[in-house]
Amino acid sequence: MITRIESTQNPRVKQWKKLQTKKERNKTGLFLIEGLHLIEEALKYKAYVKELIVREGTEYSLLDARDIDIFEVTEDIMNTISDTETPQGIAAVCGMKGPTPINIATAKLLLIDNVQDPGNLGTMIRTADAVGMDAVILGEGCVDLYNGKVIRSTQGSLFHIPIMDGNLDVWIKRLNVIGVPVFGTALEGARNFKEIEPHKHFALLVGNEGNGVDPKLLKLTDENLYIPIYGQAESLNVSIATGILLYHLRG
Amino acid sequence: MITRIESTQNPRVKQWKKLQTKKERNKTGLFLIEGLHLIEEALKYKAYVKELIVREGTEYSLLDARDIDIFEVTEDIMNTISDTETPQGIAAVCGMKGPTPINIATAKLLLIDNVQDPGNLGTMIRTADAVGMDAVILGEGCVDLYNGKVIRSTQGSLFHIPIMDGNLDVWIKRLNVIGVPVFGTALEGARNFKEIEPHKHFALLVGNEGNGVDPKLLKLTDENLYIPIYGQAESLNVSIATGILLYHLRG
Repeated sequence: MITRIESTQNPRVKQWKKLQTKKERNKTGLFLIEGLHLIEEALKYKAYVKELIVREGTEYSLLDARDIDIFEVTEDIMNTISDTETPQGIAAVCGMKGPTPINIATAKLLLIDNVQDPGNLGTMIRTADAVGMDAVILGEGCVDLYNGKVIRSTQGSLFHIPIMDGNLDVWIKRLNVIGVPVFGTALEGARNFKEIEPHKHFALLVGNEGNGVDPKLLKLTDENLYIPIYGQAESLNVSIATGILLYHLRG
Repeated sequence: MITRIESTQNPRVKQWKKLQTKKERNKTGLFLIEGLHLIEEALKYKAYVKELIVREGTEYSLLDARDIDIFEVTEDIMNTISDTETPQGIAAVCGMKGPTPINIATAKLLLIDNVQDPGNLGTMIRTADAVGMDAVILGEGCVDLYNGKVIRSTQGSLFHIPIMDGNLDVWIKRLNVIGVPVFGTALEGARNFKEIEPHKHFALLVGNEGNGVDPKLLKLTDENLYIPIYGQAESLNVSIATGILLYHLRG
């Protein structure tokens, strides 16, 4: 069914716009995605797509979108609900996934502590997907997964692998008990990552852009790794470091 | 000498604001940097710092800033000249460096083709610096090095290593002649990067976010590499791929 909406004061438009806030997303369990590519990924990976929002005059073709309510809106409305400067012609309201059971004894996990830049978090999720990680656990202080920029930076990977909020302290202790090695990242008291052999199962723990991983968590790991800096840079971007370490540890 | 400026209509303020455009930067050879950290890096690495711009009430201490003209400005003026939403209290006008002679026979080079996202380009420069590359060559289509977001993402690395615009076709042919191996990046007809041994001297060629490296350039390389994708992601972010490959090739 296609419904046309022309006023930015329409209650549904106001509702969509509210999804720009984390509070509203958490209250409703819904979030907004923009652009055909992300919507295709959502449909392909069986995410719950509740509503499609199409700017008048936008041509698109989507498989498997038969049962979804479609709203045709004006350019003004699309600009209102979008969090980008140049909105694409199509958006969708999706439902968050519940927690996914994973067998952590045979898993490869990325644990993320307090990463605040949306582009970094999204790119790290995309990289974790690419390297075949089984899940990503978002610890305290991480930017919200359903932030528009995070979603865009994942390039669809948020629909591919389980991503969960979690208490990293609890997660690491649980991994310790079942013998899955946990590698932290640190600048001091750490080993050059190149000395570590690839692992079939492991967890990598990475942290905040400025301060790195919480020292309390670093005390719980099996080993902490560093990436040598050969030039004058003070450090690597956290998403770059994550990519280098994941591809090394996976082997 | 400290000069106080209170009007956003002051010609000097207008001049600073104009530095937000590539055209003006190229005309004058000047660019603006924001934040104490970048200014410290500029001074430490002997970049030409022409003017310091300080928002009234901002406390700072800088070594080696003795001969630089200082302008105290209002919050309004700082907001006008800054290209960030929450400007820091201090900015500086710097001069571009001329080309730096490098011995390409014994160099490690990063060649960048048509990378358009400022955050990606800046992060790639930061990573190239970290891994100890000798220079970065920016080919056609790259976002301007002196774009504010590029500068911020380099975290100061633009002051650490030579970065030059260049014709990549010419560069690769020159490297071919002197026998420095050039590795391209491609999805097809390429080798898994893990099969390649580390090299003392090499050039890595990476390319556009959506389309990769120009196929014409890929024909000139010694070998093209790919990073295997084990999950459902279609590709890696170009700056992530660059980090993985540089740390692998350097050994």
